[in-house]
Amino acid sequence: MSTVTIIGTGNMAQAISGIVSKAGGTAQLLGTEDFATPVAGEIVVLAVPFPAVDEVIAQRPGQLDGKIVVDITNPLNFETFDSLVVPADSSAAQEIAAQLPTARVLKAFNTTFAGTLAAGTVGPLTTTVLIAGDDTAAKEQLAGIVRAGGLNAVDAGALKRAREMEALGFLQLTLAASEKISWTGGFGVVA
Amino acid sequence: MSTVTIIGTGNMAQAISGIVSKAGGTAQLLGTEDFATPVAGEIVVLAVPFPAVDEVIAQRPGQLDGKIVVDITNPLNFETFDSLVVPADSSAAQEIAAQLPTARVLKAFNTTFAGTLAAGTVGPLTTTVLIAGDDTAAKEQLAGIVRAGGLNAVDAGALKRAREMEALGFLQLTLAASEKISWTGGFGVVA
Repeated sequence: MSTVTIIGTGNMAQAISGIVSKAGGTAQLLGTEDFATPVAGEIVVLAVPFPAVDEVIAQRPGQLDGKIVVDITNPLNFETFDSLVVPADSSAAQEIAAQLPTARVLKAFNTTFAGTLAAGTVGPLTTTVLIAGDDTAAKEQLAGIVRAGGLNAVDAGALKRAREMEALGFLQLTLAASEKISWTGGFGVVA
Repeated sequence: MSTVTIIGTGNMAQAISGIVSKAGGTAQLLGTEDFATPVAGEIVVLAVPFPAVDEVIAQRPGQLDGKIVVDITNPLNFETFDSLVVPADSSAAQEIAAQLPTARVLKAFNTTFAGTLAAGTVGPLTTTVLIAGDDTAAKEQLAGIVRAGGLNAVDAGALKRAREMEALGFLQLTLAASEKISWTGGFGVVA
């Protein structure tokens, strides 16, 4: 099974680490202060807030080349909770891919709260992780881990679909912040 | 109970008509060729494809003033199935509101397939209708009908959130068209 490096130590990092472990893989959890430790995984999950991504990339010149890099961010303006900070016709994932032209960038995990990743369920449904990206083999590798970890995975299309996934993540965050849904709820996927 | 005029005769129009009837309201179903028949409802649902909306509005000068006008469209480029035809920083609902400055425009029903509106369920979940708009009383009036019709309704925020709802609707359509989900499935909402 794969080794997955997870950069970040918050609740999303912990939940994704749990999925990797359940799948029989090895999770390498690195804080952003651990930049002297090389990434061991062929998959690297950037489990940090969007404003911290640039620093993580800058701290690891060349280390992400050729890797499957997973962007999980919801690039909200957290002051207004009323817009995203990326251009309207782009997405955090596409901005990151432009910075890492040799990496195989995927968008995943941004449409599922940490609670539903950790529990493996959202209400009566198995939690579904949507995965967008331009590299089919990379998507299948991540989907395999997600499924072996007990969750569903759905191929959401090309990396440009990250824009719609980030809109969904944004909407879901506004619904939870306004108490229309709970942090253990949200959008589930019915096949 | 309210009278709801539904312009359009497709499966979405039929499903919304069914909800109004279940709620004890009166549904006035009008085809686009019925433009000589005045709208009877205080709520008018534009249940036509986005490219047909301009014509419906042009056919009814002044008739939509002051009405609650419900936009249900997903303004996809149906040739490519790869983008929306509205500006990236806007939405069909906002474009329609700009054309109807005295109407109380709401976005609703675009994140639920006709099958889940008609059944009242999406998998094990009660179908949830997201409603965005700038007029709280209008949102509450529509939500009341939806709930009396046996579905859940959730206030998704200001009309500008239509942009994210249309992204969700777009993503959901691409998943169904690529057979990742069925037309009786899709995104359910877990509170």
